[in-house]
Amino acid sequence: MPQKRVSIKDIAEAAGVSHPTVSRALRGEGRMSDETRQRILELAQEMGYTPSLVARGLVTQRSHLIGLVITTFADPFHNEVVQGVEEEAIRHGYDIFVASTGVNAEREKEVVRSFQGRQVDGIIVSSSRVGDDYADLLQETGIPIVLINSHVAGSHFHAVHHDDYAGGCQLMAHLLERGYRRIAYLGNARAGKANTDRHRAWEDSLRAAGLAPGLAIYGPNGRLAGGVQAAEALLPAARERWGAPPDAICCYNDTMAIGAMAVLRRCGLRIPDDVAITGFDDIDVAAYLEPPLTTFHQPRHQLGVEAMQVMLSLLGQTNPHPPRQVRTLIGQLVVRRSS
Amino acid sequence: MPQKRVSIKDIAEAAGVSHPTVSRALRGEGRMSDETRQRILELAQEMGYTPSLVARGLVTQRSHLIGLVITTFADPFHNEVVQGVEEEAIRHGYDIFVASTGVNAEREKEVVRSFQGRQVDGIIVSSSRVGDDYADLLQETGIPIVLINSHVAGSHFHAVHHDDYAGGCQLMAHLLERGYRRIAYLGNARAGKANTDRHRAWEDSLRAAGLAPGLAIYGPNGRLAGGVQAAEALLPAARERWGAPPDAICCYNDTMAIGAMAVLRRCGLRIPDDVAITGFDDIDVAAYLEPPLTTFHQPRHQLGVEAMQVMLSLLGQTNPHPPRQVRTLIGQLVVRRSS
Repeated sequence: MPQKRVSIKDIAEAAGVSHPTVSRALRGEGRMSDETRQRILELAQEMGYTPSLVARGLVTQRSHLIGLVITTFADPFHNEVVQGVEEEAIRHGYDIFVASTGVNAEREKEVVRSFQGRQVDGIIVSSSRVGDDYADLLQETGIPIVLINSHVAGSHFHAVHHDDYAGGCQLMAHLLERGYRRIAYLGNARAGKANTDRHRAWEDSLRAAGLAPGLAIYGPNGRLAGGVQAAEALLPAARERWGAPPDAICCYNDTMAIGAMAVLRRCGLRIPDDVAITGFDDIDVAAYLEPPLTTFHQPRHQLGVEAMQVMLSLLGQTNPHPPRQVRTLIGQLVVRRSS
Repeated sequence: MPQKRVSIKDIAEAAGVSHPTVSRALRGEGRMSDETRQRILELAQEMGYTPSLVARGLVTQRSHLIGLVITTFADPFHNEVVQGVEEEAIRHGYDIFVASTGVNAEREKEVVRSFQGRQVDGIIVSSSRVGDDYADLLQETGIPIVLINSHVAGSHFHAVHHDDYAGGCQLMAHLLERGYRRIAYLGNARAGKANTDRHRAWEDSLRAAGLAPGLAIYGPNGRLAGGVQAAEALLPAARERWGAPPDAICCYNDTMAIGAMAVLRRCGLRIPDDVAITGFDDIDVAAYLEPPLTTFHQPRHQLGVEAMQVMLSLLGQTNPHPPRQVRTLIGQLVVRRSS
């Protein structure tokens, strides 16, 4: 094991015909008797011949395979993005293979190189840590790259992204309108542009309301444990600043908010009576928490669909340097009982 | 776009040498002057030549790529399984590409065929709906297949699985010991063996305690909405059977339990005072719910690691029909405040 794959040559030998004859029979082309064609097709089936998509790709220069790079399978944000990409891809006869990078820029480059070496037709990268560094790779190979929510600001690639700054401003407008004043920001030290945009939206909103400077505390990552750590550091910092807990916490994402909610409960603080809390993304579980979480809904499925649409349009072009395509989506504020 | 990949032939033409000379220079083999070798390597770099892993795989018959098939990226169960497989694979110089099937047996076969056509060295399938149907495919191609938690009973494949029956019995022993008597089962109509084993553990435990027949209600899937639907059907059914709500609900998995908890709260039932609830899997968020969820921890990461270990041992064998390898893991009961 592995057993050797049955080749066209094997079938040609068994059928007593030439290699090209078998190729033509399998493609349904060429002049030959129906009997010969029939015999070759039967032999191919008996012998367990499956056409190698790889070999076919080497000939046609098209593999109909798109590589999708995500940071981690553990982040529920990616689930629907992947499904959006997949659905659109399958609808157009493309396969999607997914690989993860673990929020590591070096590993991200390795994964992209691996996809390129395996001759995908295009690569979609979600939450890229690399961004413009792909310029060289793109130059070398010409394989189109589309970025979804790149964490690198000012990227010059084809891109689909969510307007996090506008989303963050809507969340803050909601909190300020409800009368919250001691609004802390719980940030993700590992995120790039997404965190910067959300942090900036919080800060600009506070400043416009005459409440700057605010109190921002960062967790080491955007996961549950990151939310717990940041919230544990926030409470004493807030006492020092305000002599009281924050009256609202604006979290980088829903997952951190879930971690922070556990800390608030453990400290005997009621949500939202003592402390309101908001997330970002609207992951599936957000509506099922106690209390259900106010958040900003990212159209994750649509981000995936549109990234694949940009990819399809690039694959359909003969221009080696097509004009840059950028699409910006904006989701919507979802007010629930946590605020 | 896509731009044509630079080939060895292109470099040979530019360097004014033969195709095999370029090949040997790139592999660091063969007799040639240092100057020639240097010139070829410089040209290859300037022209943006990247060795095709695919072409190399066609020659070496080894792609160092493993295809991993999961049902859906939306199920948090798969996250850690994927990470376990990946870590073990990377440690041994293999890449992992992941593709999803959407809990659809036909699509699962298509995805596996696609991996085979792209010449992966092996395929790992998590929560397979197909199981023994792979016998023909395996026969045809000889590409090793390892199943993780197959949903098909009696599969004859190399497999790593969790002992769900034993886990379900431990959960039930815990509930019975705490004095719960009206214990309902919330099932997943879409799951195969995993659901059957957990359902059977619940039923056998009830019978042994003299409490059979129990009340089992099924949701259309194992997701949040599936849990909501099943719980909404359960409450009136329980009133009819017992004149009261169940005093405990044993759920197929944590995700359904989260959906059911939302329904219980909406109906004014306190957890665990009025109704206790248990999940299965111990997904990350289970410990962060209010109340935190009692569940059975599946060693998901370890399931992935061991599946890859079985794969590596198969790839290391020359025997085309190696003896079947089956590993059974058992996780542990995690008691939290929901019961």
